[in-house]
Amino acid sequence: MAPEARYTLLKESEAPASPAGWQRRTARERIIFGVSIILGLAAFSFLWAFSPSVLGLTQLQGDSSSSTGYQNSLPAPLKQCASSLPPPANSPASVNIWASLSVPETVAITEWLSHPLRNLNVTSADRASLSDNIIFLVEAYRPSKTDALAYLSAPVSENLPARYARATVHLGARQDEDGGPVIKDYLVGPLPLGDETSMRELTEIYHRDEIPYNARSFVIPSELTPLLIKIMPPLAEVTKDLFGGVAMGLPNDTLVAGASGPLSFDGSFRRTWISWRRNLPGPWLHPVNFFQYVDFSGTDPEQWKLIKIVYNHQIFPDIESFLEAYHNGTLRKLPSRPDQTTDTQWSTRLRPNASAARDLDHLPGPRQVSFADFPSRSYCTIWYSLISSSVITRKLTRICEAGNDPMQTTTAWLDRFFGMGSSVRDMLPGYDCPYEAVYLPATTHTSIGSITRQRAICIFEHDTGRPITRHTGWMPGEFGAHIAKRELSLILPTVFDYMFHTDGTIEVRLSASGYLQGGFWEPAQEGYGTAIRDTTMGSLHDHVINFKVDLDVAGMENSLLYTHTAQEEVTHPWFDDDWGKTVIQQKITRDYIENENDALLKLPVNFQGGYSFVNKAKTNRWDIPRGYAIHPGYSPVHNTVVGSKRLLNNANWARYNLAVSRRKDTEPSSSSMWNMNLPGSPMVDFHNFFDGENITQEDLVAWPQAEDAPNTRTNLATSSFFLTPLNYFDSDVSMDSLNAILLHPPEPHSQYTFDDYGVKPAQCIPEAIPPFEYSGLSAFGLDGKPAPEVSLEELRKAAELYHRIKLEL
Amino acid sequence: MAPEARYTLLKESEAPASPAGWQRRTARERIIFGVSIILGLAAFSFLWAFSPSVLGLTQLQGDSSSSTGYQNSLPAPLKQCASSLPPPANSPASVNIWASLSVPETVAITEWLSHPLRNLNVTSADRASLSDNIIFLVEAYRPSKTDALAYLSAPVSENLPARYARATVHLGARQDEDGGPVIKDYLVGPLPLGDETSMRELTEIYHRDEIPYNARSFVIPSELTPLLIKIMPPLAEVTKDLFGGVAMGLPNDTLVAGASGPLSFDGSFRRTWISWRRNLPGPWLHPVNFFQYVDFSGTDPEQWKLIKIVYNHQIFPDIESFLEAYHNGTLRKLPSRPDQTTDTQWSTRLRPNASAARDLDHLPGPRQVSFADFPSRSYCTIWYSLISSSVITRKLTRICEAGNDPMQTTTAWLDRFFGMGSSVRDMLPGYDCPYEAVYLPATTHTSIGSITRQRAICIFEHDTGRPITRHTGWMPGEFGAHIAKRELSLILPTVFDYMFHTDGTIEVRLSASGYLQGGFWEPAQEGYGTAIRDTTMGSLHDHVINFKVDLDVAGMENSLLYTHTAQEEVTHPWFDDDWGKTVIQQKITRDYIENENDALLKLPVNFQGGYSFVNKAKTNRWDIPRGYAIHPGYSPVHNTVVGSKRLLNNANWARYNLAVSRRKDTEPSSSSMWNMNLPGSPMVDFHNFFDGENITQEDLVAWPQAEDAPNTRTNLATSSFFLTPLNYFDSDVSMDSLNAILLHPPEPHSQYTFDDYGVKPAQCIPEAIPPFEYSGLSAFGLDGKPAPEVSLEELRKAAELYHRIKLEL
Repeated sequence: MAPEARYTLLKESEAPASPAGWQRRTARERIIFGVSIILGLAAFSFLWAFSPSVLGLTQLQGDSSSSTGYQNSLPAPLKQCASSLPPPANSPASVNIWASLSVPETVAITEWLSHPLRNLNVTSADRASLSDNIIFLVEAYRPSKTDALAYLSAPVSENLPARYARATVHLGARQDEDGGPVIKDYLVGPLPLGDETSMRELTEIYHRDEIPYNARSFVIPSELTPLLIKIMPPLAEVTKDLFGGVAMGLPNDTLVAGASGPLSFDGSFRRTWISWRRNLPGPWLHPVNFFQYVDFSGTDPEQWKLIKIVYNHQIFPDIESFLEAYHNGTLRKLPSRPDQTTDTQWSTRLRPNASAARDLDHLPGPRQVSFADFPSRSYCTIWYSLISSSVITRKLTRICEAGNDPMQTTTAWLDRFFGMGSSVRDMLPGYDCPYEAVYLPATTHTSIGSITRQRAICIFEHDTGRPITRHTGWMPGEFGAHIAKRELSLILPTVFDYMFHTDGTIEVRLSASGYLQGGFWEPAQEGYGTAIRDTTMGSLHDHVINFKVDLDVAGMENSLLYTHTAQEEVTHPWFDDDWGKTVIQQKITRDYIENENDALLKLPVNFQGGYSFVNKAKTNRWDIPRGYAIHPGYSPVHNTVVGSKRLLNNANWARYNLAVSRRKDTEPSSSSMWNMNLPGSPMVDFHNFFDGENITQEDLVAWPQAEDAPNTRTNLATSSFFLTPLNYFDSDVSMDSLNAILLHPPEPHSQYTFDDYGVKPAQCIPEAIPPFEYSGLSAFGLDGKPAPEVSLEELRKAAELYHRIKLEL
Repeated sequence: MAPEARYTLLKESEAPASPAGWQRRTARERIIFGVSIILGLAAFSFLWAFSPSVLGLTQLQGDSSSSTGYQNSLPAPLKQCASSLPPPANSPASVNIWASLSVPETVAITEWLSHPLRNLNVTSADRASLSDNIIFLVEAYRPSKTDALAYLSAPVSENLPARYARATVHLGARQDEDGGPVIKDYLVGPLPLGDETSMRELTEIYHRDEIPYNARSFVIPSELTPLLIKIMPPLAEVTKDLFGGVAMGLPNDTLVAGASGPLSFDGSFRRTWISWRRNLPGPWLHPVNFFQYVDFSGTDPEQWKLIKIVYNHQIFPDIESFLEAYHNGTLRKLPSRPDQTTDTQWSTRLRPNASAARDLDHLPGPRQVSFADFPSRSYCTIWYSLISSSVITRKLTRICEAGNDPMQTTTAWLDRFFGMGSSVRDMLPGYDCPYEAVYLPATTHTSIGSITRQRAICIFEHDTGRPITRHTGWMPGEFGAHIAKRELSLILPTVFDYMFHTDGTIEVRLSASGYLQGGFWEPAQEGYGTAIRDTTMGSLHDHVINFKVDLDVAGMENSLLYTHTAQEEVTHPWFDDDWGKTVIQQKITRDYIENENDALLKLPVNFQGGYSFVNKAKTNRWDIPRGYAIHPGYSPVHNTVVGSKRLLNNANWARYNLAVSRRKDTEPSSSSMWNMNLPGSPMVDFHNFFDGENITQEDLVAWPQAEDAPNTRTNLATSSFFLTPLNYFDSDVSMDSLNAILLHPPEPHSQYTFDDYGVKPAQCIPEAIPPFEYSGLSAFGLDGKPAPEVSLEELRKAAELYHRIKLEL
């Protein structure tokens, strides 16, 4: 184990005096987090970026050396607030066995794989063509749950699980007689590299033998250029007339393309619909209603071809026939083309009415400030739960757009394909997270190097604005409130919140925002969206997100409990005839679902029931099996479209609200990065996990899902679920908290007295907020050294990939 | 119009220098609140407590005269933060036409009604018996919507609607030959009282002729004493043995009772199940499994009688037979009686482990602070929307407990019966609402006087912890975030939040907390609850809340749009055969629901559709009818039990997720305070509102509902709905806000620049938080003068009424 993988939370110079550390954790607290949520992680390494190679905690704070000096000039007791950086923490286990690979590690593994002894004949990805072999991805492969738990229960070095990496290699150079180009996954280890390190193919987690080359993601953003450069320049005169723009492969091109997905059904071909848009801010909102279907199968761009052109519901097999129709006047033109003089500011984020302002809107809103000595006081707690025992993995999918044009009708994005880790962006302090949040960095690795984002994750304690429990009463001990604290981690641009409530509940919420992928609006689109501008519509589509929750309730032997209610008519001997002899009421039925095949679940009508993990063998003090319920939050829905060929078998998890299967090392994830392009024959078919096994008192995982509505304000485009104690404790553990008040009602002519358990509002001068700054990213080349800075356009191309393809010479 | 009903937001001495007031409101802002939500209000007057007779804004702030002097000793620019009291505001209308009655007004109306000229022969309620006539309730009767809108559109004095009061009179003295005791509602006005003031019966809002006397609420908390005092003392020896307690009518009684509801089916009788509990903190959690069914119909307690006694599933017709069974040994006793030595602290709110503390829990959490000059900057906005055009009314119902004992099987509470206004409690600053919230008082009127709570409502701007929109981008104007502000008002003990989002969305959320009404746990209860202690269970029950939303979208002519999606298989000429000739996708269908009878709605399966109010005649710039959608939030469910005789026709709104009817002055509310006791023949039958009328382009009201789960932590016991613009605007109005940031990505070797529209984090020394204090209430007698303070026990009896009946001599 590399020494970097140890916890070194703070630089010594930054550490405040030792506060209540882990040594002071009480038995009760350990119980609270005794619900361990162990992960299987894939293609999502940034939560693991706590590995100290990237672990330099950053935080917004005034430079103390440039202090305004108020601290000294103020009379006691009002002093400058303490830093909200967390106090030092000692993890229960000294090594993070789930640490991501560091940049030097990925460099070393890449070099090891590139050595002639490995026989892979790889070319460096930053100068490879499609017909070369390249290393596409190197990432940590998490230890088995057995090994992980063995170490966590006795964290001594002899129990340390061996460390492995997974390497995805594109074998573009494989000859046809050997089966042609293909992708292979390898397991490399043990790490660090040494004489005992070897590699083997990683196949046990997939449901078909080979990963088709046609299912790969773009390696370079300009992959389609060799084909598009043959198509668009000859059409320049026409596109200029019809759409007011051209795509010539020049820097000042006024049209850019977007590609649709999936690119393949079973790997036998690689085709996409190209949709052209005006090259303006928010180009996804400026489609011009011009489409090309192209084939770019295989490794030789010379073989790629245009299959058809669609314009205004007319189809042309090639450039020539389209040009002919245009010139001979048979082309039915759109009634009006987007007016080039039209205001395009609407697709920026600029304020629409620069001169108008809402009342008092020129003032900043309220700000969350910690006045206590160690403000991020719950940091240890979340830290503990995140690092040592808890992660929930998830993947986001925008599923099945609908519409009346070639692109919208055929698009089904599985966002895992794009690499969710590399989509991580820095958070904006004061906008995405409170100023005083603790920000953590994350590093992601791609085939052409690594990227570190300094503010990839934020953790903070949030004032929810409401208590978690409350009662007004008059007998001793009845009247009081407990504060609802939450600790959050947020990940952007799509926002995942993991909220740890004081009662043991974990809330997982996704809030979507960002530009939508617009469609061209014309009356024929009625039913597939709504006009949001003259020629732009918001297209009907679903977002479905699948999570993996490896939840161990009081041990690994868990059962799936379905608690539901039904109406019943009962009679009791004490009923009198003024109300009749019977009563209609509801009754709870508790059924254990015993077989995986019965655990592909939808929520009951009207939510008259719910699912939970319970341990039949472990009861609470009242003899009820201890459990955790999986409670729906906002928008608890499943996919609305079933049977589409473009989602035939590659997103089978989206058919349900929840599924529960036996946990297996060979079933780390419900999908794979290639699933999007293999709906007919996916690498991972979620249904294969459900093969008739008994799930009574077994090690189970839950696969809940969540979906958001087709709009992009975070208040409504939100979905969530809760994991909440269900007889797990003997009573409500939030009552433990000192952050509470107990009132004692007085007799007449006296005052209310109270007990605040010594926790009183503190007061000090909040740390000054430094000027806003956004630092961008730190990029590393394949050699692990800082990469040269690249242009905006390059950054954009890499980020938007299929969504904005700019033609290039 | 009484001069007190004018807006006088602030005492002069408290007003800060004039900031951006109403005069500076922009056209855009007026549009935002052009969605007017007009109310029909009944039995819920405290939101209207803005009437200046009670309008002394209170707020927690350090006394400036006792300033610590930091302000002076600090070098510029760091200074003491400004008060977060709102700047002065001028309402668009100078008179609040929905103002509640002031205490002097209720006193005057009570006196007017008591005058011999009125012929009511009333006795003062504080010294009346059940066979007297009393004035039970006097409250403001809101003007008709027509009159209200006429004034608001031209707020001049000649358009002021006449002001009326509603008086509910209990005619306990009416003789049998005249029909016997009855309740009557009268309309009194115009106000203020004068020569033109008259009264008439108010009947047009009810669906049966007379309000039965047996349907009334308790007038005095000890109503049942005359009967219970005959039952319990003779049983003292037995209850002491069986339950370790007695009810003798003495101060040190160790048993108290709870009564079940409803008390009647159609008004022909008045009966209840009495359930006995130990007189401990949280008595609802200490039932002893001992029940009595009693009849207390009519006005003569001498006629009231015990009908039966139930103990451990054995039934006895009278005291004697029960005593006989006890003494002759045939009584089957419970296996064990609650042990008097058992720890009872668990039913207090005291911390369970006084010696243990969570890490850093001894420190206060983060606190929301406004550093800007006028921190409650959105106060005007909410003020405007609450006062002049928006209120949503609601009623809470705990519906149909289930169980296996006489009380749980027969209980159905409709909480309106208890008077929700008088259940308002003061909020706890720092626990229920942020310290810096603005607190508003409310006054409620009962038959024996009035009560003012100084902190009945709080309003504050809340940092949600996430932006409302966000995008990372590289073209000019793409990259940025808008802050999600919310303004909340909270009402306790059950928490209603009205949240006004910057995009025009209004979120309405209820979060429940407080003690549950426990049942006696024994194995026979399996299926009706879960043991939470040795002999206590949490009973299965539903909470269903009904709201009235009088929403006018761009005028009063609105239609009900049902937007839903269905799967379709389509073919397009551009499809190629590598994917087949067809595509399965979803399509939107938009149907207008044209008749009230079709507008009793349930949410579609999997939320594949939604309902909205649209104005067909008013389109946005893109020619789409402007609308507001009613979007489900947490727990969007309807009642689970249908057909129970105890909810036969008195809560018909609970059968649906949403209902939409034509708005009528005669249909102000979906229920009445007597509905609980008249399930067989309610005063207001919600189904009567749906009588086949056309609802196309009419003045509509929505009756959405929400339900919470049977537990009492606010994080999960939450339900909500959203009213959100649906093509109401031409674009997202949240983009207006200056509280936003726009980033400009740089070329290599340069820094990101940004535009924060001049809104930067401010800095100052936050106002000190004064020591916690809880002031209790201000009570006024029937004469309008301060009432003498009463004992804790009296306060408790009035508040808990049916839930904790203490026997009294």
